[in-house]
Amino acid sequence: MIRILGLDPSLTRTGWGLIEAEGNRLVHVAHGAIPTRPDMPMAARLRALHDGLCAVIAAHGPQEAAVEEVFVNRNPQSTLKLGQARGVVLVAVGHLPVAEHATRLVKKALVGTGAADKAQVSAMVARLLPGCGPLGEDEADALAVAIAHAHLRTSPNRRTAA
Amino acid sequence: MIRILGLDPSLTRTGWGLIEAEGNRLVHVAHGAIPTRPDMPMAARLRALHDGLCAVIAAHGPQEAAVEEVFVNRNPQSTLKLGQARGVVLVAVGHLPVAEHATRLVKKALVGTGAADKAQVSAMVARLLPGCGPLGEDEADALAVAIAHAHLRTSPNRRTAA
Repeated sequence: MIRILGLDPSLTRTGWGLIEAEGNRLVHVAHGAIPTRPDMPMAARLRALHDGLCAVIAAHGPQEAAVEEVFVNRNPQSTLKLGQARGVVLVAVGHLPVAEHATRLVKKALVGTGAADKAQVSAMVARLLPGCGPLGEDEADALAVAIAHAHLRTSPNRRTAA
Repeated sequence: MIRILGLDPSLTRTGWGLIEAEGNRLVHVAHGAIPTRPDMPMAARLRALHDGLCAVIAAHGPQEAAVEEVFVNRNPQSTLKLGQARGVVLVAVGHLPVAEHATRLVKKALVGTGAADKAQVSAMVARLLPGCGPLGEDEADALAVAIAHAHLRTSPNRRTAA
């Protein structure tokens, strides 16, 4: 059995979702989001994100972590902000094996097609993890990458975060 | 007297420089750089950067930190990488007051004109900090922003890192 932490990094609100996987069996453990206040200085926001994520890790003891391959925004300032949040997230989980999965592969693992939309992915997360309750979008995305990682972690196409 | 840590964040090689300032008097304390290996996974590189910087902070006890305003690259992947390194650096110094200074103001504080080139800035760093010895480019940039911060920290134009 393996305990997987899925993450959806964002400066505004980073989603996280924790599952346990044993072969094809998946169990929902916990999920949540770490918001940061836009009126705080950047360094303080990043530290809040770091400390929040470290608390999640300390509480739940994941063995592997997974993030989605990043969407590079055309707006350079947005890309920089996303990069800063993503750097903080990757450092916080840096003591674990961290895998990166392409969005297309996450969708394919969940819905069976890389062209699935957000609603389909979210519905499939709820179906695969009965008892997880209502999910925000960031939490659903985080659980989706955790589920995809459970399927993809033994695949030869697996990549580490880059 | 105040102990200032200047930083030049980069994934490949983050420069750092520590000075003490008392009024107009500046003293060089230490400088260095934290390289990361391109053949390592991203999460491991970011963690090496984080741990290296934490070791510098633990060894030297800076009271304030300063970074240059970021240059947003036109290449989105480079911007993302720079953002990731910068996020890690800002988290590592997040327990200190962290200021961000525009490149133009750093050059102006050092050389007297915002249009100074790198060689002029580097020469002025060496002149203002006698005994600092030969400097690599990243270390000179880091010391430059520390010196500029010593001049600018009481200025009303001061900004926090964003």
